[in-house]
Amino acid sequence: MTGKIEHLGIAVAHLDEAETLYTALLGAAPYKREDVASEGVRTSFFLTGNNKIELLEASSPDSPIHKFVQKNGPGIHHVAFHVEDIVSEMERLKEAGFTLLHETPKKGADNKLICFVHPKTTGGVLIELCQDDPER
Amino acid sequence: MTGKIEHLGIAVAHLDEAETLYTALLGAAPYKREDVASEGVRTSFFLTGNNKIELLEASSPDSPIHKFVQKNGPGIHHVAFHVEDIVSEMERLKEAGFTLLHETPKKGADNKLICFVHPKTTGGVLIELCQDDPER
Repeated sequence: MTGKIEHLGIAVAHLDEAETLYTALLGAAPYKREDVASEGVRTSFFLTGNNKIELLEASSPDSPIHKFVQKNGPGIHHVAFHVEDIVSEMERLKEAGFTLLHETPKKGADNKLICFVHPKTTGGVLIELCQDDPER
Repeated sequence: MTGKIEHLGIAVAHLDEAETLYTALLGAAPYKREDVASEGVRTSFFLTGNNKIELLEASSPDSPIHKFVQKNGPGIHHVAFHVEDIVSEMERLKEAGFTLLHETPKKGADNKLICFVHPKTTGGVLIELCQDDPER
């Protein structure tokens, strides 16, 4: 898992305000918005070199992003690494003792297959594996 | 400031243990260690694509990393973006209303000139600007 940082996920309280802030900060506008109903989030994506910044706003009160912002305030939520073969990477991590949050890859935002690794096993960092979805 | 993510800074409690963990997680060893006495940190760097992961351990009790870990536990501490011209980028951000933590660029780890942007002005995210140091 030494692929690039595919994106950095930043939890925000208000997507419109955060988009305005990050547009001023980065000096560039987001390239797309996407609702991911299955995860209970609305997202907005910025390009930074060949990496991305993903702003995440909760779209329902039981969204993990809602809970995160309630507990910690807005801030960095997760880091996603690009992988070529998510299934073999998931197997490698399980064998190495890491706890995965899903048994099989899920469909995520931005045409990706994803899997999260539990932060209890990664020194407090929520890590996402990200493979391009061959079906999209 | 739409350069790549130069590195992601992760605060850790014990550098040796964290190095072992991240070597297992990423499937690759760190490429260097560096003490940054001026910041009160010991660091360890991993390559992930053309990005880097910087593990940060406090080397003194008044290090910001010590305070961060005491308050939050280990986890993602900051994100650094590559910039070509740190001075002009600092001026642009100041004019746009962001608060910088220094008036002039500082010498950071890994042969960089750096400047931090206050998280109060960036939606809770500690952001670092990173330019290659022409003197090193």
